[in-house]
Amino acid sequence: MSVTAAAGFRAGGVACGIKPDGALDLALVTTEGRAPAAAAGVFTTNRATAAPVLVSRVHLSSTGGRAVAVVLNSGNANAASGAQGRADAARTCALVAAELGCRPEEVLVCSTGLIGIPLPMGPVASGVPTLTRSLRADGGPTAAEAIRTTDTVRKEVVVDTDAGFVVGGMAKGSAMLAPDMATMLAVLTTDAEATPQQLDDALRAAMPGSFHALSVDGCTSTNDTVLLLASGASGRSAPGPLAEAVAEACASLARQMAGDAEGATKVVEVRVEGAASDEDAARAARAVAESVLCKCSWYGCDPYWGRVVSELGSSGAAFDPDAVAVAYGPVTVCRHGVACPHDAGALATVMAAPHLSVNADLGLGAGSALVLTNDLTHAYVDENMGTS
Amino acid sequence: MSVTAAAGFRAGGVACGIKPDGALDLALVTTEGRAPAAAAGVFTTNRATAAPVLVSRVHLSSTGGRAVAVVLNSGNANAASGAQGRADAARTCALVAAELGCRPEEVLVCSTGLIGIPLPMGPVASGVPTLTRSLRADGGPTAAEAIRTTDTVRKEVVVDTDAGFVVGGMAKGSAMLAPDMATMLAVLTTDAEATPQQLDDALRAAMPGSFHALSVDGCTSTNDTVLLLASGASGRSAPGPLAEAVAEACASLARQMAGDAEGATKVVEVRVEGAASDEDAARAARAVAESVLCKCSWYGCDPYWGRVVSELGSSGAAFDPDAVAVAYGPVTVCRHGVACPHDAGALATVMAAPHLSVNADLGLGAGSALVLTNDLTHAYVDENMGTS
Repeated sequence: MSVTAAAGFRAGGVACGIKPDGALDLALVTTEGRAPAAAAGVFTTNRATAAPVLVSRVHLSSTGGRAVAVVLNSGNANAASGAQGRADAARTCALVAAELGCRPEEVLVCSTGLIGIPLPMGPVASGVPTLTRSLRADGGPTAAEAIRTTDTVRKEVVVDTDAGFVVGGMAKGSAMLAPDMATMLAVLTTDAEATPQQLDDALRAAMPGSFHALSVDGCTSTNDTVLLLASGASGRSAPGPLAEAVAEACASLARQMAGDAEGATKVVEVRVEGAASDEDAARAARAVAESVLCKCSWYGCDPYWGRVVSELGSSGAAFDPDAVAVAYGPVTVCRHGVACPHDAGALATVMAAPHLSVNADLGLGAGSALVLTNDLTHAYVDENMGTS
Repeated sequence: MSVTAAAGFRAGGVACGIKPDGALDLALVTTEGRAPAAAAGVFTTNRATAAPVLVSRVHLSSTGGRAVAVVLNSGNANAASGAQGRADAARTCALVAAELGCRPEEVLVCSTGLIGIPLPMGPVASGVPTLTRSLRADGGPTAAEAIRTTDTVRKEVVVDTDAGFVVGGMAKGSAMLAPDMATMLAVLTTDAEATPQQLDDALRAAMPGSFHALSVDGCTSTNDTVLLLASGASGRSAPGPLAEAVAEACASLARQMAGDAEGATKVVEVRVEGAASDEDAARAARAVAESVLCKCSWYGCDPYWGRVVSELGSSGAAFDPDAVAVAYGPVTVCRHGVACPHDAGALATVMAAPHLSVNADLGLGAGSALVLTNDLTHAYVDENMGTS
């Protein structure tokens, strides 16, 4: 039930006509009875910030972290759309607020899709009344469907805690995924009782192990947004378990994104250990994860570790060429900086699996990091050769 | 005549058996009569530094910038090869020195090819005597042929100056090309009279406008080396014109590399102007040039400028979303941060040409930068799926 798994939330989705093929393209998540929920958000660090991100930030700030609804559209990012785009994002919130009977500031807005094309407000305006009528207690999957772009599957999660509350969520994202920020759209809901600050703390703590550890193509989108709303309907308050459940939910959504990355044939976990610091480990892991040479070789199931060592050495992390070790899964192929004997059959099996673990030990210290990524394939090139 | 165009140099190449297909794989450039030439070098910044780079650096330093010969092999990078690799690189120099009758320190060494595989010294040792016998005054093209790996054509240049001397050169490089260092192998020769310091100054001044402005895949190789040797055979000394000729030669070789990048169908010049500083402009231009999303869209002749704006915004450069303009060639498609009317027919012609110019104006200041790159194609994926 994804975003409606937690008590106190309703969701829905409609096809309002933004996508030319008539697919679902407008989604809404609201609280039951329009009661303001505690809310927190994490947004893109891209300075080409999309209009809906700017508007949602202002709304969250002006309400002190309260929201009644989140409206999301796919098919158009409302980015690089100037003053008109900002007015369109604000008007979308106002249209939803008028239908729901709340203040526009209590509505948050997210968009995803093509950049640089004005948001078609006719379809949005005519779609909002139908959208509010589509709200259901089991509407989570419909909303998750309506935010897909090139995603081939819905991304949904439910974490049921021993503390008596639930965290549910939905997300979209299959390209333009990079660390350092939220990297996609995700809406999480919980029926725990929590203050906006507790939600914000839980969300920020969840990022390093989930969305910030995900790099599909190193591209940071203009629209990335993660929102977390708490209805309090369970009557339970437990900040620690809440943070744990939010982290688990975010990690699950991030893994789902890695598994559905554009054109990818495999999920690749790049793990760096033995770095001089965690920062160095992250820098080194990201360099390997974003290397087009490494990504092509993973696609070809090629165990050529020389490229991995070359990326580690040029990542900027402290590096000793005589100390590095590289393993694919459990098979070590490079030790003390040079090739080492290994079982070629076992290695071939590891390289061909749909989940590949690339492990590098820099042999210098205790720093470690993990980055989730994918291979680079003919299909990725196909998907990104054109916009249609 | 490339590396033998300047008076006072000889070159040659042989197939010694490093490459399994029997292609030329060992090259030698020497001075005429074994007279030590003034010499300077620029080397990779990759901390996984290959053995020949380590050895050449020590040799250049111990002779105070004098060299009699440069020996180069393709088919094996002698990188990630540990202490044995360093001994092999030193022994290669010693073998050449014994044949030529000079000191091992007067021989510089370069390798290019696969990483992590011991250099086969049997073929090298048996090939060196044949190699020295292959030296000719018109041997430049043979040497340039012998340093090719995935290059589809030889890279050669001759700059004939009004000052009465010549700068010639050869290079290899078609992947693992990124700025911040030399990014490939290149050997330049001149018959100008020059001190090692003058050569070093000329070489370093030439980098920003040539090899440092080239980014094919953002990967910095372990072996990158640019060497410049001066025989003085012309009897002319003119540091200013020499620096200009070296810059022109390096720029030509860099353009040749961009034109022969693995799998590329077009050369793309990314030019950023109006940045707050030159550093910001370089950061922004490199972000666009290395974006796999942008590179795929250029392959597809897709004028979707939203990705360009998104990369500029996440590059770290100062950025105002309402000030940016983007043009493909002369056709402006985005002004003041939003789409603007343009001639679709003219745009289609620009996008389909084999040479694409992507121009962004950040509208903030006087900083500018240029990065040479390519599109990302099915053929690049093919070439890098495997090592054979």
